[in-house]
Formats: sequence, structure tokens, C-alpha cells
Amino acid sequence: MTSSNTFDMVIFGGAGDLATRKLLPALYHLNKDGHLPGGSRIIGAGRSAMSQAEFTEHVAKACHDYVPEADMDDHALEAFCKRIDYVTVDSGDPKQFDDLAATLGKAGDERTRIYFLATKPALFSQICENLAAAKLNTPNARVVLEKPLGKDLASAQEINTRVAQVFAENQIFRIDHYLGKETVQNLMALRFANTLFEPLWRNTHIRDVQITLAESVGVGGRAGYYDGNGALRDMVQNHLLQLLCITAMEPPINDHADAVRDEKLKVLRALRPLQGQSALRNTVRGQYKAGAILGEPVTGYLDEAGMPADSRTESFVVLKTRINNWRWSGVPFFLRTGKRLAERRAEIVVNFKRVPHNIFGSDSRDLSPNRLVIRLQPDEGVRMSVLAKQPGNTMRLRPVNLNLDFAQTFKVRALDAYERLFMEIIRGNLTLFMRNDELEAAWRWIDPIVAAWDAEGDRPKPYNAGSWGPSSAISLLAKDGYAWNEEVDESF
Amino acid sequence: MTSSNTFDMVIFGGAGDLATRKLLPALYHLNKDGHLPGGSRIIGAGRSAMSQAEFTEHVAKACHDYVPEADMDDHALEAFCKRIDYVTVDSGDPKQFDDLAATLGKAGDERTRIYFLATKPALFSQICENLAAAKLNTPNARVVLEKPLGKDLASAQEINTRVAQVFAENQIFRIDHYLGKETVQNLMALRFANTLFEPLWRNTHIRDVQITLAESVGVGGRAGYYDGNGALRDMVQNHLLQLLCITAMEPPINDHADAVRDEKLKVLRALRPLQGQSALRNTVRGQYKAGAILGEPVTGYLDEAGMPADSRTESFVVLKTRINNWRWSGVPFFLRTGKRLAERRAEIVVNFKRVPHNIFGSDSRDLSPNRLVIRLQPDEGVRMSVLAKQPGNTMRLRPVNLNLDFAQTFKVRALDAYERLFMEIIRGNLTLFMRNDELEAAWRWIDPIVAAWDAEGDRPKPYNAGSWGPSSAISLLAKDGYAWNEEVDESF
Repeated sequence: MTSSNTFDMVIFGGAGDLATRKLLPALYHLNKDGHLPGGSRIIGAGRSAMSQAEFTEHVAKACHDYVPEADMDDHALEAFCKRIDYVTVDSGDPKQFDDLAATLGKAGDERTRIYFLATKPALFSQICENLAAAKLNTPNARVVLEKPLGKDLASAQEINTRVAQVFAENQIFRIDHYLGKETVQNLMALRFANTLFEPLWRNTHIRDVQITLAESVGVGGRAGYYDGNGALRDMVQNHLLQLLCITAMEPPINDHADAVRDEKLKVLRALRPLQGQSALRNTVRGQYKAGAILGEPVTGYLDEAGMPADSRTESFVVLKTRINNWRWSGVPFFLRTGKRLAERRAEIVVNFKRVPHNIFGSDSRDLSPNRLVIRLQPDEGVRMSVLAKQPGNTMRLRPVNLNLDFAQTFKVRALDAYERLFMEIIRGNLTLFMRNDELEAAWRWIDPIVAAWDAEGDRPKPYNAGSWGPSSAISLLAKDGYAWNEEVDESF
Repeated sequence: MTSSNTFDMVIFGGAGDLATRKLLPALYHLNKDGHLPGGSRIIGAGRSAMSQAEFTEHVAKACHDYVPEADMDDHALEAFCKRIDYVTVDSGDPKQFDDLAATLGKAGDERTRIYFLATKPALFSQICENLAAAKLNTPNARVVLEKPLGKDLASAQEINTRVAQVFAENQIFRIDHYLGKETVQNLMALRFANTLFEPLWRNTHIRDVQITLAESVGVGGRAGYYDGNGALRDMVQNHLLQLLCITAMEPPINDHADAVRDEKLKVLRALRPLQGQSALRNTVRGQYKAGAILGEPVTGYLDEAGMPADSRTESFVVLKTRINNWRWSGVPFFLRTGKRLAERRAEIVVNFKRVPHNIFGSDSRDLSPNRLVIRLQPDEGVRMSVLAKQPGNTMRLRPVNLNLDFAQTFKVRALDAYERLFMEIIRGNLTLFMRNDELEAAWRWIDPIVAAWDAEGDRPKPYNAGSWGPSSAISLLAKDGYAWNEEVDESF
């Protein structure tokens, strides 16, 4: 299908959790669909000593475990496995990078090289420096960095600086997998390929915007990682702010990487700073207690395995912010994310203002305002509520939904976010990846919020697992007359 | 359900074609659904001598013939027939109006009286004057006038003047049954109950508007009536201009009759006049030749029974006009109607402008503009085309339709236009009826077009039955870069 240059992709942490669950199955799909150029190789790299055969077996098992059964196919798996190789590389051992160089060199230096760092971020700089020492940072090389990209501005800057000594900015692909979702792409299409939305997409017509990334899972076995970060760093700094940028940005001059990223950066820089008292006033932190999800009892945050008993880390956060520019002045943006919430739901809700004047009589006193819902999880779609006249002999108006369900409409398998992002990495297109200045601008906005919380020293507010967070998450909106979208989505 | 005062409705032409096919079945439905106040009577009036029993039998037959079988119900029919009475009234015989007065008087003078003139318009004035002579133009009386309301400004004015000597303007209900259609009501709801459309509803965002009322039938047995009028008078002067007004009017201050009619009148007065050469340049007349509809051969216009062999009457017309006001300056409005066209289709098509700038790359060179289709026939619905991203690894955009199908969405039987209009007449609500000044403004715009055609003396252009009219109906648009909406409506 799509022709790209033949490549070698080295996945550091190749046998790790992310690679096993997401990356290898996505590469299997791409290969099955003919998107991987012939001769391209996928080379696992990790500290564990493993033979090519052993890693290939691991890959086959990963596919069996994580590719939907309908997409599994013995021939396709066999063809995929032929691309697999493995090199034992301890990130701290420069000598082993020479082994990697030898493996890569066999195929010739001219092919595109992709280093996918699916490791702890603490290793990013070291791996890059050792790649450089082994002269593997060739001009045709690309490096892919997975989140978390630091845990504050200083650590993010350190990663950026050290990686930049080895790779040029246009060789660095910082992943935020939400940007690979079809719906996020479609938000760009809706906004900029249609005349219908852009004229309305501003404070004259929009009352508020709500972005929710709700998970029903808890921290699971990741207490060690999660407790050092919390919902603000784990979800808001990256995913929520990226979605906010795509929702709020000005039309870029084209869809090239820097044009889009320039516009996103402008949004981040226009975010009203939350610090000190204003951070405390405009945020709500929560931490889940024991409760029930879908009828199953679940433990509280503090009782999760490996969790310090006195943890003050938030598993839930709501922020109210604004974007200080002409387009959005006066429009609150509400961000919400958390674990152990009532359901898994990711959506961007755009609430329009009421009509300025009701011409209809007593049959229709209350004209409910229009709402556009861009849904990312559990399924992808767009829904617009409009008021229409109910058939009959009165002018009674009722909200009805105009739906765009991508799966139903297009009847083709949607690409997983990682499949899409791999395609872009292979093509060398940076549009769906974060630039260094974006990353730093996001941290620059996040850090003062963390500092305000730390200075206050209060515990996060407890909430029952299976709820929508502490009640102050609702009253933060309610006190100004806003409300979370909680409609039941029968139509999706 | 709805409570209104008990009424007596006298249908002049009660055994005629319109009453039989439309009015009586509509009244049957309203009675079945509990919308006719107890004790209300429906009194046929006509030249033919008929007993109450004979007319009741006629009514029962009309219901059997024209009410869908699913809605027929012996009990309901029996209850309806109990309301039926008949009085022989020759419109030119004042004495017989005294008989009518006697029949009405039996029930007392306080009840609402509705005189529905389903007769030739030549009789309107005479009937009204004889009603007055018999003192039947009481303050609680309403008179309903069916089209055609004159055949030019002078004849319309004469009807208006003579009827006005008997009834006050707020007692006069001039019917345009298109205004009773759910979709026309819904166009008001979409425009004025939603924030989404009104800001876009103007020349800054709309490129052109097309209103089509296409019939597949021919003139049938109505050569005598039709040949004296033609498509311009029969369809454009009333239905098409009314739809244009509802589409283009400014937001009225409320939905009361005069507020809405004031706004419609302003549209009619702002229509760019078509006269002389400009009328010839901006209109296309056609007359159908023999052809085929759905595979069945049909005769040509000139061969219809009773048609003069040299008739120059148009059975098809296209007009290009503009509305000279701030909102619509520069936006062409294309009106099209005709008989023996390819299909029965009535729709309002709003074509939006292209996006001002294409940010997308080579995958999406041609961004098709948004289109809103408000469909009245054969079924009612609203469809909005938007561009969305096709799932997959490119930014390929494709138009998809957001649909609002009233029957599917609301799952209730839609009222027939006449049922709706009857309800309004019973309530005394004039919003869905034309005011005298509207009627005259429409004729004032139509007359110079007829005069220009007459002065030119050319025959209408022939077109094949089963086509979309003569080719110049297409080139009238094409020469300025416009095109008729001819998409296949699979989605309806």
C-alpha cells in the first residue's frame, strides 16, 4: 500500500509491558495490512539475554494474547516473525551497543533506523548517548520517546537537552498516543475541512468546554510508578493538555508538523496560570477509597499493593482553566481525569450558548443549548444535539442527536493509535508528536499547581471507587452555573 | 387532547375533489386522535342536492379511499360520521344561505364558525357576500381560502378587497398547505431554536440556495385549470415563494402570526425584481413532451385531454433570483418546479461556501463544501453533509451525512399538512397562513415575469417527460459555476 523506505526498528524494552501489549501487536497489524516495507526488521533490545528464537516466540505469544482473534492469521504471523531479531543491550553498557551496531550494520547503513525507547525515562539520555558512542545516531535515524517525559519542567528539560546532543529535533518523536486516535484526527477534519464549525468555534457561541479522560481501572500493580506521579502528571500534563490544544488551537497554515505544533504551543502559552491560591481554588484533587465497579468490590488507593500508607498522591483531578486569547476569552475549560471512576469514558464536550432570544411560545419555554460531543472511548464518534420540532400539532421542541459513528459509517477497521503513530514515524512525519517546546510549556503550566498543592499540604479528597470523584468536583462547576455532561449515551 | 371551543365547519365544495381527497380524511384523523371538541359539526355545502345520509355515505367512502388502512377503524369512522351534516347551497343563491343559517342556528350562535371555501376562487367573493347577507359573518366566524388566490395581482386584490368587506383580516385563513408540513415547521425550529445554524445562515457562509418542488405527475384531467395558469402561478407564486420566505427571513420577535408574516413580507419585498430582459435572462420555461416515468410511457403536455394544441403554458419553470438585503446580498436563490419530472422530490438545499483555506495536503485536495438538505417529499427529513476523516493511515476526507429522519427519530405518526392546518384554524392561530399583503407582494413579483414572457411570445422549451427539464435549466446555473443538487438520496 503505502511505500516507505525499508527500515530497522530497535525497540528498547522490547520484551517489556508496553512492547508486549501495544507495540508488537500494532506492528503485526501493519505488516499484515502491507504497510511495512519489504526487508524491514524489528529488533528487540533489552537487558535479558535472549536468542532470536526466544524473542520471536515472545512476539508470537504477544500477538496471540493481544491481537483480536478475528485479525489473527497464521500466515501473517509467520511473515511478521520473519522480521524479528533480538540483541541483548544493557542501556548502561556501551560495549553491547557495538553488538547492536553490528546487527544493524549487516543490513547496510542506508536504511532508516528507528530507536523506540519503551523504557523508563530515566534511561532515555543514557541510551541516546550510548547510541551516539556507537555511531548509531546517523542522519537517517529517528528516536521515539514514550511517556512519562520527565516529572517536572527540570527533568523534562534535562531529557530534552541530553537527547538533543545526540539527535536533531526533527529526529525526535515524542509519543502521546491520544494524538494517534482517529477521533482526534477527525476533530481536525471537522474543524478545518468544514465551513460549518469554525465560525461557531469561539467565545461568541461556545459557553464551556469539558475534557474528560475517565478510567475505571485502579493503579493496579503500578503503585511504585503511579504514586510518584499522580493524575496531574500522568494524564493532564500530556493527554488532556494535548486534547485541549487540538480543540482550541487556531487554524494552522497547513497540516505540517511545525505549523500544527506552533498553534498548539500558542494555546499552552495562553493558558491562564494556576498558582498559589488560584491553583487551590481552581483544582480538585481526589483519591479513591474502596468501592465497587460494575458490582465488583475494589480496594482503595491506599490499600493497593506497594502503596505507602500515608500517600497524598491524587488519583483524580479536576481543573478549571481559561485560554487568554481573543477566541476563547471568557470560556471556561474544565479538565477531568481519574482512576476508579464510574466508567471508562474519554470525551471532549463542547457546550454551545443558549439562543440569544426564544421566539417560541409556552410550548417551548426551555430551549436546551446545543452540544457537540467528540467521543474517544470506549468507542469513537461524534454526536451533535440539535433541537427539532416534535411531530404533532404543537411547536414542542426536543433535543435529537445527529450522530457520526465512525465504525458504522466507514465499515473499515479503525487503526489503533499505535498503528497510526508507527506509520507516521516510518514516514518521518512529526505532526502527531510533541515538540520539545510544547513539552516544556506543558510542564511550565503544571509545576506551579504541584507546588501549590505541596505548599498547602492537604490530603486529596477521598471519593468512592465507582463514583465520579469527590463532590467538590461537581461544585467547582456548579458554583458558576456549569455542569458536567452526564447524559446517558444510548446513541453510541 | 387539545381543548378548543366547539365549532361548526362548513365546507363549500364539500363533495369536491379537495374535500374528498384531503379535507375529510384529515378531519377524520383529527377526530380519531381526539382533537375535535365534542359537539363540533362538519357540514358539507354544495350545489348538488344531497341528504345528510347521502353526504355521510360520501364521507365514509372518502375515508375508506384516502385514509391509510392502518388508521381506519370502524368505531372512529362511526363517531366521525355522527358529526356530518349537509346543506344544499348554490353559491349564487342567497336564499339557500338562509337554509345554511338555519342549520347553523340550531346549535346556537356562540360556537366558532369556520367556512372552508374549497371551491373555485371565482366563487370566493360571492360566497362571502352571501354569507354576510345571511348575517353569517359573525365575529366568531373564520373563513378559509384555498389556492389559487387569483391569477395575478389585480384578481388577488379583488378577492382580498371583496372578502375584506365581509371579514376582518384576522378572520381570513389563506391556505398554503406547504406551510403545514412538519419539515417547514422544523426549518423554523432548526433556525431559531439552535445556536448552531443562525450564525452561518447568511451570505458570509452560504453560497447558494436551491428550492425544488418536482412532480412526476402530469396535468392529468386538469388541463382546463392548469393551462390557464402554468407552473409559475400554480407553484412558484405560492409554495416556492413561501418556502423561500421561511428559509430566508430574519428571526421574528416571536412565533405569533403577524411577527412571522411581517418577516416573510420583508423577504418578498426584498426579492430582486425580474422584468423585461432580466426576466428572460433569469428564467427558463419548459413544457413536457411524451416520455417515460418509471418505465411507463406518458403523453406530452399538448396531447393531454382538453389541451389546446397551441398552448404556450409552461409546465416547468426555473428562476434565479436574489434577495436584496444585508443577509443575502450576493447569494443566488434558485427555484425549480415542474410536472412530469424524473421523480417526486421537494427539498430546500443550502449549499455552504468552501472552507476559505485548505490546510490539508495532497490526500485531500478537493474539500467538498457542506450542504444542508431539508427534505419535504417524498419523505420528511434533514440531512447535513460534513467532511470527516476516513479511518486509516492518511488524512483522506470524505463527505458523510448527519441525518435527522423525523419518522424514525420520533416514532409517532406525522400529521398531514391539512391536519396541522385544521388545528391552527380551530385554534384561531394565523401563523401558518398568508396575510393579504404577503399574497399581493408575491403577485407583484410574479406579474412582470408573466408580462415579459408574453411580450417575448416564445414557446416554452420542450423537455422529455421523466427528465429534469430542458437543458437550459442546467446551463442557467452552470454558466455561473453553480449546479443542481442531484445526489442520490440513499440515506433517506
